[in-house]
Amino acid sequence: MTIDFRVSPERYRHWRVAIDAPVATLTLDVDEAGGLVPGYELKLNSYDLGVDIELYDAVQRLRFGHPEVRTVVVTSGKDKIFSAGANIRMLAASSHSWKVNFCKFTNETRNGIEDASANSGQTYLAALNGTASGGGYELALACEHIMLVDDRSSTVSLPELPLLGVLPGTGGLTRVVDKRHVRRDLADYFSTRPEGLGGAKAVTWRLVDEVVPRPAWSETVASRAGEFAARSIRPSSATGVALTALEKKRTDDEVVYRYVSAVLDRAAGTVAITVAGPGAAAPAFADVRPLGDAFWTLAMTRELDDLILDLRTNEIELGTWLIRTEGDPARVLAYDRLLLDNRSDWLANEILLYLKRTLKRLDVTSRSIIALVEPGSCFAGSLLELLLAADRSYHLRGVFEDVDADAVPAAITVGAINDGPLPMGNGLSRLQTRFYGDDRGLAAVRAATDEPLDAEAAEALGLVTFAPDDIDWDDEVRIAVEERASFSPDALTGLEANYRFAGPETIETKIFGRLTAWQNWIFYRPNASGPDGALRRFGTGQRADFDRKRV
Amino acid sequence: MTIDFRVSPERYRHWRVAIDAPVATLTLDVDEAGGLVPGYELKLNSYDLGVDIELYDAVQRLRFGHPEVRTVVVTSGKDKIFSAGANIRMLAASSHSWKVNFCKFTNETRNGIEDASANSGQTYLAALNGTASGGGYELALACEHIMLVDDRSSTVSLPELPLLGVLPGTGGLTRVVDKRHVRRDLADYFSTRPEGLGGAKAVTWRLVDEVVPRPAWSETVASRAGEFAARSIRPSSATGVALTALEKKRTDDEVVYRYVSAVLDRAAGTVAITVAGPGAAAPAFADVRPLGDAFWTLAMTRELDDLILDLRTNEIELGTWLIRTEGDPARVLAYDRLLLDNRSDWLANEILLYLKRTLKRLDVTSRSIIALVEPGSCFAGSLLELLLAADRSYHLRGVFEDVDADAVPAAITVGAINDGPLPMGNGLSRLQTRFYGDDRGLAAVRAATDEPLDAEAAEALGLVTFAPDDIDWDDEVRIAVEERASFSPDALTGLEANYRFAGPETIETKIFGRLTAWQNWIFYRPNASGPDGALRRFGTGQRADFDRKRV
Repeated sequence: MTIDFRVSPERYRHWRVAIDAPVATLTLDVDEAGGLVPGYELKLNSYDLGVDIELYDAVQRLRFGHPEVRTVVVTSGKDKIFSAGANIRMLAASSHSWKVNFCKFTNETRNGIEDASANSGQTYLAALNGTASGGGYELALACEHIMLVDDRSSTVSLPELPLLGVLPGTGGLTRVVDKRHVRRDLADYFSTRPEGLGGAKAVTWRLVDEVVPRPAWSETVASRAGEFAARSIRPSSATGVALTALEKKRTDDEVVYRYVSAVLDRAAGTVAITVAGPGAAAPAFADVRPLGDAFWTLAMTRELDDLILDLRTNEIELGTWLIRTEGDPARVLAYDRLLLDNRSDWLANEILLYLKRTLKRLDVTSRSIIALVEPGSCFAGSLLELLLAADRSYHLRGVFEDVDADAVPAAITVGAINDGPLPMGNGLSRLQTRFYGDDRGLAAVRAATDEPLDAEAAEALGLVTFAPDDIDWDDEVRIAVEERASFSPDALTGLEANYRFAGPETIETKIFGRLTAWQNWIFYRPNASGPDGALRRFGTGQRADFDRKRV
Repeated sequence: MTIDFRVSPERYRHWRVAIDAPVATLTLDVDEAGGLVPGYELKLNSYDLGVDIELYDAVQRLRFGHPEVRTVVVTSGKDKIFSAGANIRMLAASSHSWKVNFCKFTNETRNGIEDASANSGQTYLAALNGTASGGGYELALACEHIMLVDDRSSTVSLPELPLLGVLPGTGGLTRVVDKRHVRRDLADYFSTRPEGLGGAKAVTWRLVDEVVPRPAWSETVASRAGEFAARSIRPSSATGVALTALEKKRTDDEVVYRYVSAVLDRAAGTVAITVAGPGAAAPAFADVRPLGDAFWTLAMTRELDDLILDLRTNEIELGTWLIRTEGDPARVLAYDRLLLDNRSDWLANEILLYLKRTLKRLDVTSRSIIALVEPGSCFAGSLLELLLAADRSYHLRGVFEDVDADAVPAAITVGAINDGPLPMGNGLSRLQTRFYGDDRGLAAVRAATDEPLDAEAAEALGLVTFAPDDIDWDDEVRIAVEERASFSPDALTGLEANYRFAGPETIETKIFGRLTAWQNWIFYRPNASGPDGALRRFGTGQRADFDRKRV
């Protein structure tokens, strides 16, 4: 089964979106029979990847389609239950790689929700009108403000450890102590108490921001939503951009969109990705909104986003991604400048933030990424980020004599967009991360902003890894790709997860580094996933049989 | 087999220590037949836990016994090889828990080496007189300065990924990019190249600090050692403290030292640890050196250090440590003050640093830690850190009526030592970490410094988790301990590894969090440790058979 991440509101089975500007309400009302894969029922508003694909889509559409929305209330359509979190039977039946990939996407969606609150003026408010357990509470943790109904039975809880022998791995452990500043010993107690906590104690311990009696619920939620809306600087009278159906041709061998394409080579274990620059010169800024999702940066980002998700989920044996670009570098830089010069505009801001989030997906993608800079390529500004996100890059010195002796040698160009507007999860730009601890190297690169850099110059500045000439190119690249395919896929994942994140750690990188790495280990251990493990025994009435060794 | 961490120089089989003040030379000259466990030969200066136990001992003795030593040169006694790193056959034959525990101790020793360079005025210099591979290079990475002989054959390398399908997990990946600032793409290439790099390129890429031709080797090493020595403020005429044989009674049921004791309960899966305060009032500072390792803080720390290592290695099914203290809190605070008031003295500084390192061991120990505050307890100042390191604490409100109705209710006392001198790996004190993001809470605790706090006060200030009275105490503590024993040991390890490290991450916490967590996952995967995995197939002439899924 190939998972498709493209969805649209009229096809939602699990979420309802209601807009009453400046407030939107996202209501989780899971269709029990609507699981993405057969074999489980999505009871108690529990979710699987399909539910989360809809949530991601809804969040994206609210940002682009609704400048007038300033607060998003996330609530439940069920009685007494907000959400029981990720579906246990789904997790128990899933392969290791599915579990890991599912958690990664779920984490990214929750990070995107935080990004909206922090940077879009669209603040998420969790209105927990019933119990929020596990991943349900983790979704609330990603919101800026958590309200819990005070009815003597509704609680928030993280029952993963006591009931399932795994971690609250969708940011839960990190956000509890690092974001909400719950004291570590209280957090410890809370996370071992399956029934969770509600009422005043949940507020005192900082697990939620407020508890509200049921009679005052609707009014208080509305009032709080209004308060958050009042703080936003989103324009009230702008027109949104509709995200139209993404055109995509998908076969076993290739994935083709308008600006992005990918050739899948199953024998080699590679994907050759090509990203094309704009087909025309940058428009006047006034024409960007009318262009909508046809505007190059937005169109290209949507395609890249979909491709990353598709390949990560559906092509897990294709371990190396080769990234090429093509087009006119000057046009890319002009598109970048258009966005940067108009960043105070809500739409320019949204496009930049979306590009930022999409590039962050690359950083946490467990595939080796190699950028190839050849004549005709277009690694400039926003597209240069693809090279900076790569584990390694090769820049042809000169041209391919046999192909086109008169070609213009490839150049790469650093633009203003590379120096801050597209930070990684660690809070630094990819350039800053690359030159972490090397201020002189970074200064030299900054001094070369907007200059086309040929292979010699790019190598000297430390922007590309290697600059072989025509004679060596084929062998060097081939060996790199073949070597990559010969190494342990697990060790590569670990290597890349470490080398990609030099410098400071943030809540976001801690979630993908510390928390996720531990969770992956736990997911793979028999105490969780073995036949007698807690995940598999959940709901059978039998207790898990644990190997008691502390490792 | 019970592993004993106590060793002394006359019993070393693998290291030689030569002192020519202000320089000491630590020479690695591994006895191939001297493996700690049968079944492998320690060829090419490769190491196992036994080799590293000696290194740890040597580092400790240089700090305490040799104030006159300002530079420590780490070199090899073999021709052409510095060290091939951790022994592969040992790793391949070891259980998962042994591998993880071995790496943890090895990491701690290397962190201790960095601590000596940074805080003791005893700078470590790696004099690589031959190839340093894997863990051999990682040991060099922990030194302040790396010299490599330039002989056209000696290199530094991290061959773990290409040859063994695992990570350079003893700090390697983290230190390469975060400490030495090797560019991530060069680091990627370097870590996939089993033969490594030497010569000028190793310097250009920052893998080493200098390469030196063999004819100039001895002279240059001596000269560099002298330069580092000249920067140190260690006293040249002070007398060191000998670390005498640690007296210890060890049976299957208990471990008893002078100030520290532990009762092992195999049925319950717990260890009841008691740490006693000083037996006498604090001496005058002039008497501390003559007291030597009989001085309470140093004696207690040595015992605690040994106990942690013993239990971690030998008692892996005892998953919960219950920590109690006993003694006179005023005395502990007086000992603390004595050290803090004389911190400019090298010995006071060393004792504080050693206590810091030992407490850090607790933070990365994969055991649940519960502190119990009862009448007669002594959680004050340095001993309060044990409670602050715990995952949870219980403070009896009042007294045990049946035991001694006239007892004095237990109090805990925050001292100046809790507010900075004993930072965790994240660079924050345990108090700062506990109140991360809660400045008011931290300020309130600071305002209560030196005040004995009863259960009500300690709970109100957030210093203890729960304050049950006599009636509830037994049940609450019993349930907490029983619950802990019923949970998945793996999930507990993950939970604790996340909750204990709120706030910033440093090189040290990245090594124990991000890097170690990934390595543990990789160690457990068949691609490394299965019968066809890379670790098991190494040296057989057969290639590993990898599951190619990227997870």
